[in-house]
Parts: sequence; structure tokens; C-alpha cells
Amino acid sequence: MPRLVMKFGGTSVADLDRIRNVARHVKREVDAGYDVAVVVSAMAGVTNQLVAWCRDAAPLHDAREYDAVVATGEQVTAGLLALVLQGIGINARSWQGWQLPIHTDNAHASARIAEVNGAELIKRFDELKQVAVIAGFQGIHADTGRITTLGRGGSDTSAVAIAAAIGAERCDIYTDVDGVYTTDPRVVPKAHRLDKIAFEEMLELASLGAKVMQVRSVELGMLHNVRIFVRSSFVKPEDIDPRQTPPGTLICDESEIMEQQTVTGIAFSKDEAQISIRRVQDKPGVAAAIFGPLADANINVDMIVQNVSADGATTDLTFTVPSADYERARVTIEKAKSAIGYELIDGSTNLAKVSVIGIGMRSHAGVAASAFKALAEQRINILAITTSEIKFSVLINAPQTDQAVRTLHTLYGLDQA
Amino acid sequence: MPRLVMKFGGTSVADLDRIRNVARHVKREVDAGYDVAVVVSAMAGVTNQLVAWCRDAAPLHDAREYDAVVATGEQVTAGLLALVLQGIGINARSWQGWQLPIHTDNAHASARIAEVNGAELIKRFDELKQVAVIAGFQGIHADTGRITTLGRGGSDTSAVAIAAAIGAERCDIYTDVDGVYTTDPRVVPKAHRLDKIAFEEMLELASLGAKVMQVRSVELGMLHNVRIFVRSSFVKPEDIDPRQTPPGTLICDESEIMEQQTVTGIAFSKDEAQISIRRVQDKPGVAAAIFGPLADANINVDMIVQNVSADGATTDLTFTVPSADYERARVTIEKAKSAIGYELIDGSTNLAKVSVIGIGMRSHAGVAASAFKALAEQRINILAITTSEIKFSVLINAPQTDQAVRTLHTLYGLDQA
Repeated sequence: MPRLVMKFGGTSVADLDRIRNVARHVKREVDAGYDVAVVVSAMAGVTNQLVAWCRDAAPLHDAREYDAVVATGEQVTAGLLALVLQGIGINARSWQGWQLPIHTDNAHASARIAEVNGAELIKRFDELKQVAVIAGFQGIHADTGRITTLGRGGSDTSAVAIAAAIGAERCDIYTDVDGVYTTDPRVVPKAHRLDKIAFEEMLELASLGAKVMQVRSVELGMLHNVRIFVRSSFVKPEDIDPRQTPPGTLICDESEIMEQQTVTGIAFSKDEAQISIRRVQDKPGVAAAIFGPLADANINVDMIVQNVSADGATTDLTFTVPSADYERARVTIEKAKSAIGYELIDGSTNLAKVSVIGIGMRSHAGVAASAFKALAEQRINILAITTSEIKFSVLINAPQTDQAVRTLHTLYGLDQA
Repeated sequence: MPRLVMKFGGTSVADLDRIRNVARHVKREVDAGYDVAVVVSAMAGVTNQLVAWCRDAAPLHDAREYDAVVATGEQVTAGLLALVLQGIGINARSWQGWQLPIHTDNAHASARIAEVNGAELIKRFDELKQVAVIAGFQGIHADTGRITTLGRGGSDTSAVAIAAAIGAERCDIYTDVDGVYTTDPRVVPKAHRLDKIAFEEMLELASLGAKVMQVRSVELGMLHNVRIFVRSSFVKPEDIDPRQTPPGTLICDESEIMEQQTVTGIAFSKDEAQISIRRVQDKPGVAAAIFGPLADANINVDMIVQNVSADGATTDLTFTVPSADYERARVTIEKAKSAIGYELIDGSTNLAKVSVIGIGMRSHAGVAASAFKALAEQRINILAITTSEIKFSVLINAPQTDQAVRTLHTLYGLDQA
């Protein structure tokens, strides 16, 4: 029998009625002939309550105890869904991370999965036709025997890792949107849902702020070639026609995508700030002198632009940080002035980064150039540019973000017919 | 170092402020030189919510899933208390039942403890001075690897079992009363707290409705000779004088009680009903014919009084049941009339059982006789009598309960000076 992983997030299991809806989705796939492993998050709001208690208990809390507390949320949902499934005649049982086990490293509160043992699940599929309901977001560190959690969004990662371990045909991520869009439909009403997107493209979109999937789960899917299908959990199971592909977006290997568009999607993030360091001494170790102190201050640097020195002695260096970190970043660089060696710094907030993503860029020249021209025609000034193999990003003034995104969306033929 | 188990129930850990109060109690004992294992219940209300969700999910629920869900309550409290303890400078870690492990049988939702492994706790006491914070009420079934719970009140049982496993000097049960009283102080204002009570006496009191301790935990204490100290969790740790014995009641072996009173306490239960079967055929198997059907109907029979037959052919037999089961019990007996063989049945509700308990009765004759006389003087009619080695019970009309309890309390010298 083909195997399927189905993952449901916190809003999809927020109360017993929604859990019953989830159970009917599971039944639909069981009836269609799948051996099913379901991965669940905590009921919406539960994790926040548990985290708040931990913070109240100890502001600087031991992450091992935090994990023991927070992992209970998923444990509850898994048990409840198993009960509801049994109630509609499906053989089901719950699994906690330590029971499978799902082994992780010991980076408590943000652990990484080391290995998932799927043997017992497969045995029960074959012998008992038993549906596995697995608590997401958690595992166990083999040496200490203590519960670990994977950090926020970790249930997606659990689902993909389990899909790899049991050789699932697909990992369905049920969420509150019905797929991945070419860009944010609130900004561009003509944005349309993608039927398919390559892992690499999704990685760029995810890391640029499209909130559909966690970066780590997409990475894991790419590594193990697990096909991930993003779909809506709010469609009633009864309304799904089993003979048709349901609405959603398949995240898969690029070889599976026949008609590859040059550009797949456009991501953007407002609230960017930029700092330029003028006439930095152009010598070895200067980048470390700048970015070391920023890293120590826990400031997340995004774009970095450094031009080739014109005079061979000094250069200008620009980087971006989230607006909220702008002041701290300035102070950090000013404090390190003597160690870095520069003349002055300037900067500004209220900027935005717009990124254009597409595997097709690899084989198409001039993709970025046409964007620069289109933006110039709209009198949108580009402050900085970075490029990679399958994307390029421009830094612009934030008030022009929507206009820029719409312009590029049209330019690359992404507007819905 | 001497070892101590401290157990805190749901109201004692109902919120973070109370958990902080618990932590200060623990610190007080650590400072006094004890190696401490703390056993905690779920925060008040949490278990009820979890149980309600299980019932909503499936009215006839799989007890294994029920246990997986309900056990999370204690897991949360254990983690939070460990965090708070760390915050006041005490090395502490949480333990779940499966981590120690606490092995139980597989009677899910009402499992019995088979074995507690205390080796790791003792190692950490000796090497790390680490306080163990243990989730009460739960264990693991070794064969299936699934979480079990011990049923309501199971945290007391966990605490006593852990005290036995680590050879604790004492098991302190912190609760919302400050000990065990000679009788209910709401009925007899002159009731006083007992400094000590023997296991056997406490077992009779517990099974007769004194709600301080669960019967099973007292049984376990008697079996392993674990001294149990019942004390209040609402006393502020700062108000306890370490040079004095704090208020509370020690449940211990009778050999530890120097001045044994003849009568230790008086228990009572209202809402009793009585059924008398008249002119039952006095032949072998008749008791089975009566009580078999009642057991099948899940009716809990308490007192049973059967007189020696006067005529050698028939006898009268009386038994009591909770008032709520009276009608069902009557119908059950009427249905079994031909199998039992009797002439008629009668009965009444609104009765009460008053029990007098004391190990001293073993060596003192006439204890019951003096009660019958005192009750007669108060014009309290005794409907039935049962006796055992360390207690006797009388069935009376419920409206006379308080009067009877007060009379006996004075008679046996239990009134507070």
C-alpha cells in the first residue's frame, strides 16, 4: 500500500470540532487506500500558554525543562485525534517523539532531527492497518533520554522527516492557506497559486518571509526528495472529489516540473534598514571586524554589498538589518570604529527588499536587467542589489514596495489570466 | 544525607505563585540537609480540562490514549517547578514516569505500581545534590512502552512508592488541611488533630470517607513501612520554625505510637440505604445468589448483617448500599427472587453509618458496649451493627448523625481540652 504523511497545524486542531474535521480528512485517505501517518501540532493557543508559564517560572529558563513542558501540547492533540479516529472506526494510536523514537541532537528548544525510526510504524501498517498519530515538534536525545523540541514550526520538519523514514509517496501539509502564491495576494490581487514549485525556489521564498513553510522542513524535503503538498485544512473532506487533484502547491524536485517559468515568485520584506560604512580600509580581516561584533550582538545581517575598491586603499561597504535593530547596529559599528578603521557611517530606515525567484534564471540571461529597466520606468530608485543563482534582490524605499512588486509581477507574466 | 519525599497536590500548585511557594518549602528542606524528591500533581483544573476533552473526543475512550493525554498535566507542573527551583539556586530536574522509570501494570487509567527504580535519583543526590521533581500519577507499562496513569489521587501513591524506593526517612504529603482529625471539625468543633495515627487506623478512616489520603497510598505505606506526614501546604515556608515539629499528622507503624488511645477517630457517611430480605432460605449458596447479581450491576454493597437462623430454615439478611443505588439494588433483588428464595424485602433510605476506629480496641473489652449505651441514652436507635478488630460501625437514621458523632466523640475522650 502506498504511504502518506498528513500534517495539521495548530489552527487546524484548535478544538474538538476541528479535530473531528481532521479525522474525516484522514479517513478519506485511508478509504483511498493509503497507509497514513498523521503529524499534529498543539491546539492553537496551548503552546503560547505553556511558553508563558515557563517565562513566568524563570526568565532565563533551562531549555531542557522548557522542552518537557512545551512538548505536552502536541502529546494532548495526538491522543485526542487517536480517540476521535477510533470513534469513527479507524484503528489508530498516538506516538510521542520518545516512543518511536525520533532522535535529535541535544540543542534543546531548537533541536535538529538526527534519525527517525519508522520500522514500528511500517510493521503496524502492514499487520494492523493502524494509523499512526504522531506528536510533532518533539523528539528525544538518545544519550540523556530527555525530551527535545524542534523550535517553532518544527511540526513541519517532523512530518517531512517521518515521510522520509517511512518512504511516503507524499507529505501533505494542511494549513490555513491553500498553497504557495506567486506573491502576497493582499498586495497583488492578480497573484495566483502555483501548482508546483521546486525545493530551491521554495527555500528562497521561505527564507524571504513567505510564511507557508519553515525553511528547515523544505531543506529536509530537498535532502531526502520528499514531495511536499501544501493544501488547505478548511476544505471540508466531503467536498473533495477523489478523482481530481485538490487545490494546493506541490513542492518537489525541479525535474518534476515540466514547464518551468523563468520567474516563479516575488517575495518582499518591509522594515529593512541600511547602514553604509564609508572609506573602510581595504585590508584582510576588515569584514570580520565589522560582522563579528554584529553577530555577538545577535543582530541578523541580511544583504551585504561591498564594491571593489577604486583606489586600492579604501572602499564603501553597505549592509541591511531589520529596522528594529538599526540603532543597536549603528552603536555596535561606532564602538568598533578603531578596530575596523573607517571614516564615517551613514544609513537609513524605512527600506524594503524585493526579491525575484526562479530556477529558470539559471538559463536565462537578462532577467534582472529587465527588472531594473521596469523599476526605473516607475521612478523606483534601487539602493542596492544582490544576486544569487536563482534569485536577485533589490533594496528600495519602503513606500514603493507594493508598486515595485506589482510591476515585477506583471513584467514576468505572473498575473492571473 | 537523609532523604525526604515531598508531595504537593493540585491546589498547592494551582498557579505560578503557589509553585513558587512550593519551591520555598523545598528549599527549606534542602537547607535543613535533606536530599529531596518532590512529587507533583497537575495544576488544579488542568486534569479536569484534559478529561473533558477526552470525553468529548470519544465517550467510550481507549484508556491508553486517555492516559497519554491526561499524564501531560503532571509533566507541565514538574517542568515548571524545576525551573522555579533553578531560579532560586537549587540544582533540580524534572522526571516523567517513563524516565525513572516507574513501572506499572497495564490497567490503563487505574494502573498499579509494580516497581520504582530509584537508583538514578540516589546517584544524583550523592553526586550532584540534585533535587528530583517527579510527575506524580503516572508510570509506564514495560511491555508496551505506553504511558499509564494511576487514577485519581494517584500522586499520593506515586509519592509513597518513591519514598520506599529511595529509602526516604519520611514522605510529606502537603495538602489543603493540616492533618488528620479525630472527626470532621465541621460537625464536632471540639475535634482535634491527631499527632500520630497507625496505618491500620488510617486505612479504616480513609475507606470510610475521610478524604485526606487515598486508601492505596496508605496501604502501600503500611506494606513498605513508609512514614507519611500529612501537613498543610498553605503555611508559609518562612513561618516554619525548623527547631519544632510542624503541625501535621504522622501516619506510621503502631509501634511508633507510645500512648495509644483506645479510640482514635470517628468516621461517618450519610446517604446510606438499607435493604432487608426477610425469611431467606438458609441454605448454602444463598449469599452468592444475592450478592452476585448486585456485583454484576456494579452496586457497591457495604455492611452485611445476617443473623443466625432461629428456626433453622429461614433467616433475615440486611445490607447497605449508597442511597443513589437503592432503587437499582431493590429491582436487582426482586428480579433474582426465585433464584434466592425469600418471602419479602423491605428497606429505607436516609440512613447513616457511624464508625468508631482505634487499634486500642483489640485489647480493650466493652468499647462498643459503652457506645450502644450512650446512643440509647440519646434516644438514637441502632438499626444494624458490624464490627471488626479495630473498628465497629452502627447504622442509624441520618438526621441523628451529628448528634451521634458528637456523643461518641465526647464518650471516648476525644474532645479537645
